[in-house]
Amino acid sequence: MVERLVVVGGDAGGMAAATQARRGRPDLEIVALEKGRWTSYSACGIPFLIGGDVAGLDDLVARDPQTFRDRCNIDVRTGHEVTAIDLDARKVEVRDHNHDRTFSLGFDLLHLGTGAVPFRPDLPGIGGEQVHGVQNLEDAARLLESLAAADVRHVVVVGAGYIGLEMAEAFVRRGCAAVTVVERGGEVMGTLDPDMGSLVADAMRRFGIVVRTGVAVEGFEPGVVHTSDGDLPADLVVLGLGVVANTGLAVDAGIETGARGAIAVDTRQRTSAPGVWAAGDCCLSHHLVSRRAVHLPLGTVANKQGRVAGINMGGGYATFPGVVGTAVTKICSTEVARTGLSEKEAAGAGLEWEAVRITSTTRAGYFPGAGKITVKMLAERGSGRLLGAQVVGDEGAAKRIDVVATALTAGMTVAEVIDLDLSYAPPFSPVWDPILIAARTAAKAVDQ
Amino acid sequence: MVERLVVVGGDAGGMAAATQARRGRPDLEIVALEKGRWTSYSACGIPFLIGGDVAGLDDLVARDPQTFRDRCNIDVRTGHEVTAIDLDARKVEVRDHNHDRTFSLGFDLLHLGTGAVPFRPDLPGIGGEQVHGVQNLEDAARLLESLAAADVRHVVVVGAGYIGLEMAEAFVRRGCAAVTVVERGGEVMGTLDPDMGSLVADAMRRFGIVVRTGVAVEGFEPGVVHTSDGDLPADLVVLGLGVVANTGLAVDAGIETGARGAIAVDTRQRTSAPGVWAAGDCCLSHHLVSRRAVHLPLGTVANKQGRVAGINMGGGYATFPGVVGTAVTKICSTEVARTGLSEKEAAGAGLEWEAVRITSTTRAGYFPGAGKITVKMLAERGSGRLLGAQVVGDEGAAKRIDVVATALTAGMTVAEVIDLDLSYAPPFSPVWDPILIAARTAAKAVDQ
Repeated sequence: MVERLVVVGGDAGGMAAATQARRGRPDLEIVALEKGRWTSYSACGIPFLIGGDVAGLDDLVARDPQTFRDRCNIDVRTGHEVTAIDLDARKVEVRDHNHDRTFSLGFDLLHLGTGAVPFRPDLPGIGGEQVHGVQNLEDAARLLESLAAADVRHVVVVGAGYIGLEMAEAFVRRGCAAVTVVERGGEVMGTLDPDMGSLVADAMRRFGIVVRTGVAVEGFEPGVVHTSDGDLPADLVVLGLGVVANTGLAVDAGIETGARGAIAVDTRQRTSAPGVWAAGDCCLSHHLVSRRAVHLPLGTVANKQGRVAGINMGGGYATFPGVVGTAVTKICSTEVARTGLSEKEAAGAGLEWEAVRITSTTRAGYFPGAGKITVKMLAERGSGRLLGAQVVGDEGAAKRIDVVATALTAGMTVAEVIDLDLSYAPPFSPVWDPILIAARTAAKAVDQ
Repeated sequence: MVERLVVVGGDAGGMAAATQARRGRPDLEIVALEKGRWTSYSACGIPFLIGGDVAGLDDLVARDPQTFRDRCNIDVRTGHEVTAIDLDARKVEVRDHNHDRTFSLGFDLLHLGTGAVPFRPDLPGIGGEQVHGVQNLEDAARLLESLAAADVRHVVVVGAGYIGLEMAEAFVRRGCAAVTVVERGGEVMGTLDPDMGSLVADAMRRFGIVVRTGVAVEGFEPGVVHTSDGDLPADLVVLGLGVVANTGLAVDAGIETGARGAIAVDTRQRTSAPGVWAAGDCCLSHHLVSRRAVHLPLGTVANKQGRVAGINMGGGYATFPGVVGTAVTKICSTEVARTGLSEKEAAGAGLEWEAVRITSTTRAGYFPGAGKITVKMLAERGSGRLLGAQVVGDEGAAKRIDVVATALTAGMTVAEVIDLDLSYAPPFSPVWDPILIAARTAAKAVDQ
């Protein structure tokens, strides 16, 4: 009898898994159930769609359902929502929104790619139609409709993480007159240390965005956001408070979860339930520096985990060793990147460290277009082990974080980083790349 | 009695050593002898000076002699050429060109930073004043004078390495009517494999440069270059045939040299002679992939070796583990980078490998400004060890080579590279960075 793999969720983690499983097992029946209209899309591209850099929703779709059907023989069904998993009976309950019917579908293998949903705090008025999340293409479509339907002048973004700041910039680019970011914490971009976050806040203010830190949102009404520091006019509100793993289905089925409620997986992406796999924003990753399970809902991680799950489901052998917490963004022409542990995270992991910060240039100082770059680097006391870095700077600054991510994966000390044979030519770098300058300073700080 | 360190050569390798030695030993007398007019300059910037990106010669000087005197208490003497080393008597013979006199100077410690000189084949007419090398600021000054003095329409560049190609572009930017590159080998940019070099040649031709490969230069006369394929008009000729280590002094003194005549050093930058150190273009480096001594005359290597020599001469302890052969350049708006072993070098090292080549985009495919990038990657058969990579592409392509350089240093397999947590956001990368795509393809090629 033909075995069936059921994939729940048609975005990166699910479809990468489905595709790889198909390669390993041409015989497998693969059904992918996606409750929305789109598969395999770039949610990371939504701010650029709103800001006008990207022309249309379809540009953000990497592969549409028909392509998966034609090229990979994957039975993709959009508008199909899985509402329950029965592990004993090996079947899922499916709601077909297209035909308003419910049916059961048996599985031999099950893959969970249920993703994450925007965190919506229980505040008065949060259900208002002017309050938008930004997590999937349905959200993006609704935002575009709102922007087209009314004259949106005042926008309030709640939360100053990556998506919040990217959206704030997008609304300015789109021509909204007044864009305000409200953040409860002391500085924007909480995944950076505050001294680096403040450089991002400066860039936003130069761009014309009002940044209000240390301010809590208390409720919403049409046209207004109530905060701990008074009311703000708001034709439109965007929630950028981060996401939470969408694991209700898994929890109800008795599948084990861990930190932040995300699904626990082993290095082969197996869940606690036999024959059930998971990948992407719904599950945890192993952090190679802190050596703890973390929830890092990022497209890169989802793709890698999905690939590993799919190889394994297809009868192969693959492991996902883990993450180092790399992220990058561009906010108001300022490039921002981070990897490894911030000071707060290093403290949380019980480590002792020295942190240094240097400024340099993105190209040789004398070369046209040389911009500023600030690099912060953390090294463990005693061992000198590289723990993490943060970069804020002009064009060409951010992608340098990848060197640090690679060195972290290799477990290098900052002294070893100094010796890295990084590329140099005047259009690309000073003769000592800024990453190497930071490593030299960090090595001194830990007496290496 | 005060000990004296004599540094021969005032560019990167020498002055980095002098500066570090000063930090370690405030008591040391340090005399740096430079035969030219400038110290610590960026020879790599000369093409950009000729091309007009950089305004003047002085912009290329990182630190002038007076700064070294004032800040580091280093007695820098320009116009001073060391003409002999007497290891037994612990002294050097110095020609002071400023005052046309010769004197002896004793040393306790000696550092050799004599650099490299352009290779000048023994061809008829090579000594003509229209034939220029491009190695130091004296060469640059002479080139600028020639360009100012006459209407230079036809330029012939002999040799299609980094400096040759950068200079060819510079002459076009400067408005020279006809620029021809003549290369004896089958393709430009011999440090790349020919399939990647041809992408660079294409970019040059689109830029209006005539590229003549497989053509040997046979001699020079004013106004003409004789080649194996006929005569070429040439108001000005630039030699881009690479450099040779400038080690006459060291050889005469009986100091050991190795491959390509460069000075042999240990990991602490000590030469075979007690108390004599060397760094930079005059000496060898250990290649971490081929595990052989190689001559890599690059500013980055010179700075790192100089730093290590200086720490050691200053009483500290430092080692220079080696290089992986990283280089980068920008030719006619095309970015070019390489690290590790090319196919030719892998063969030379007796290895067996698989090579793959992929194309991708520098940003998310849908993002404005997404350019093309081609990545070639080599992996060792059996082990799957990463051996090297080459990158040719549009803006944002080249610096990705640093991830490969770091992974090579860590001794990673291509399968391990796949898992690297590289940064992703639409303005910077597709969700699978091109380096990771290449690693996936390479891993398949070696059955990992």
